[in-house]
Parts: sequence; C-alpha cells; structure tokens
Amino acid sequence: MKKAVCLISGGIDSFLSAYIAKKKGYKIYCLTIDYGQKSRKELLSAKKVAKFLKAEEHLILKINLKFLKSALTRDEIKIPERKIRGIPSTYVPARNTIFISLALGYAESISADAIFIGVNSVDFSGYPDCRPIYIKRYQKLIDVATKKTVSGKRIKLLAPLINLSKKEIIKRAISYGLDLSLTWSCYKNEKRPCGKCPSCRIREKAISEIKKSQIKPER
Amino acid sequence: MKKAVCLISGGIDSFLSAYIAKKKGYKIYCLTIDYGQKSRKELLSAKKVAKFLKAEEHLILKINLKFLKSALTRDEIKIPERKIRGIPSTYVPARNTIFISLALGYAESISADAIFIGVNSVDFSGYPDCRPIYIKRYQKLIDVATKKTVSGKRIKLLAPLINLSKKEIIKRAISYGLDLSLTWSCYKNEKRPCGKCPSCRIREKAISEIKKSQIKPER
Repeated sequence: MKKAVCLISGGIDSFLSAYIAKKKGYKIYCLTIDYGQKSRKELLSAKKVAKFLKAEEHLILKINLKFLKSALTRDEIKIPERKIRGIPSTYVPARNTIFISLALGYAESISADAIFIGVNSVDFSGYPDCRPIYIKRYQKLIDVATKKTVSGKRIKLLAPLINLSKKEIIKRAISYGLDLSLTWSCYKNEKRPCGKCPSCRIREKAISEIKKSQIKPER
Repeated sequence: MKKAVCLISGGIDSFLSAYIAKKKGYKIYCLTIDYGQKSRKELLSAKKVAKFLKAEEHLILKINLKFLKSALTRDEIKIPERKIRGIPSTYVPARNTIFISLALGYAESISADAIFIGVNSVDFSGYPDCRPIYIKRYQKLIDVATKKTVSGKRIKLLAPLINLSKKEIIKRAISYGLDLSLTWSCYKNEKRPCGKCPSCRIREKAISEIKKSQIKPER
C-alpha cells in the first residue's frame, strides 16, 4: 500500500486534503508543526482530525519559529481585524517552505510516495507559498533533493485543493461526511473564533455563500 | 549595507562560506541548527566560528529531527567507519532543504539579501542536496516563495564553494587566515576526531594532499 505524509494544521483545507489522500488509497502519516503559533487550539484540532482520519501516525513537531516576523508568531504584531489589501501581517515568512521540507524528510525516512498539502489560491490571503507556481517549483526541487530521487523513485508533492474556492472546499468536505466541528481556522486563541481575522473572514464568507445558494427562491 | 544569512555547522566549509560573505561586504547573520545530531562538538565550534567572524547575530535553533532516518540522528544506526560505495548512512533526509528553508524565513524576517551555504560537490559523500542542480532549483523555488520576491526583491541563494575540492577549500581557508582549529568535522562526539567516518576521511585526505604538494623534491 502506498504511503503519504499529510501536513495537517487543524483547519478545513488540510483536513480535506488528507482525506483525499486516504480516498486515493494511501496509508496516511500526519505531520503537524507546533511552531509557537498564537492559536494553540489548531493543534488540538489537528489531533482530532488525525484521529478522525485514523492516521497510521501523527507526528507533532515542536520548533520555535518566533524569529519569523509575523502576526501569528509575535506578540508585538497584532492580528488584523479589518479587511486588508495585499498580503496581511499574518503571513509567516517561508512557512510552507519549512513545513514541506520537514514533510519531505519524514516522507523519505518512512519511504513514503507522496506529500499532501491543503494549500489553495482562490479565496486566500495572497500568500506566495500557496500558489500553483510555488508547488510546481517545489516539486522540481524535490526531484533532485533526496537519496530516493537519486535512486529513481519520485516523491510527489500533491496539493489537491489548489484550484478550489473555499466554498467548494467546504461543500466537498461536508459531502464526504467530514466533521468540520473538529476544525479550527481562527488565528486567535479565544474561546470562540473571532470572526474578524483574515482566516475567519474567508471561512465565514464561504459558509454564508453556501447558505445563500441553498435558499431556493419561492415559486 | 547588504545582509546575509549564513548557515554554519561548525565545519570548515561553512566557515569559509560565511567568511566569503563577509569579504563580499555583507553584514552576516549566522544560523546553526541543533537538530539532535550525535556530534555535539560541532555546535560549540559553530559558536566559536560565529564569534571569530564577528557575526551580527548567531541564532542556534533547536529542532528534534530524530524522526529523520540517519546515522547522524539515530543511536541504532552506527556511523560507518569504512569506506562506503554510494551515499553513506550519514545522509540525513532533506537536511539541507530544511536548513535552507529556515534560513529563508530568517532572511525574509530581517530583510536580508542573500543566504550563504557551504555545500560542495567535488570531494563529498554524494549527498543529493549538495549538488549544483539542487542549489539552482532551490533558487527557482525561492524566487516564487516569499512576500519579498512577490514585491520584486530577490533573495539570492549562494553556494560559493560548490565547485571547489576539499583541498582547495582548506587551502583558501588557510590563506585567508581562518583558524581551522576552531572547527569540528567528525560525525562522532569523541574527545578527538575519529579519523574513520566519511567526514574525517574527506578532511584528512585533503590535508595529506596539501602536505604532499608542499614537500618539494630535492634537486
């Protein structure tokens, strides 16, 4: 049976992405990075998601990435509560480059065939490391980066949601029976999602679009 | 003044590479990864090297990479003491991919212009992530990976030793007055270098070649 390393954050996207890996017949090995993010709840959600998906293994790796300048890592930079033009301060420098590199080492160590990541670039915050060109270039790097690729076997980097809107992602997740109440998207660490941060805004907009499309006009 | 993030391990190569950055007029910010390697002495050497080079900052980042299958990270895999054909078990899956990703995040966070790494591929252990093609592809990835590159500014990935032999590296380091007694190359953690591991073999072979070439034949 094929093996896949699935990066899971505790949010919806990586939940669906890992579910798709499973559906494609991979044994899944989940990897979550505890990088000192303000939102500690997403780590709890990641655990619930891995359990729901019956992952073979769930590795939670601790690295202190507070040296990366971001509203998600540094107390002195506040998480924005208004709509932002351009890339918001919640962008974490090189985060996906770091996460995929760790997934790659894990994949090579357990002889996995693929890495799944839930990035998407339709309704997103403009993060450079969520775009199709980025995934394509990372694959090209992986193709020369490992002992495995030197020996001829390729580790595939798969981003099955890359061209989906948040609305489509949520609709698919629901249609597959994924329990979205397990997930956490908010960048803050409050009792309930703040509803104002970029991540909450994108999630709530999609949910309201789905609700609207389900209200059929009266004849 | 330009800034560079310099990956330093405590060995000769990264020492020379960081020195070259300084010589080229960069302010240098050193980064060392304490990834749970058996050789703890290299971390001490990295500190000495950063001090010698008068780095603006020296970040020692702790990550437990014992999940990566390698003789350098796992007690149950012994460090080879004989000459090996092919890539030895001291190869650490995705190590340079991880290290450069962390350097990239650091570089973007401090608005650095370049990353320096001491990899070379003439007298080396065949590690895939030390080859010119690997550095070239990583640069291509960096070019789309960061907010900085989206904004038009490029972070350069520089490997100034890539085409040098170990002998040439050592000769240059000595000619620049770098104190090589500060460095540590051995993969083991013994009182003295073991002289048998792949890293010791490469270093000692180069030193003996230099000594031989300095003995002039009698007339």
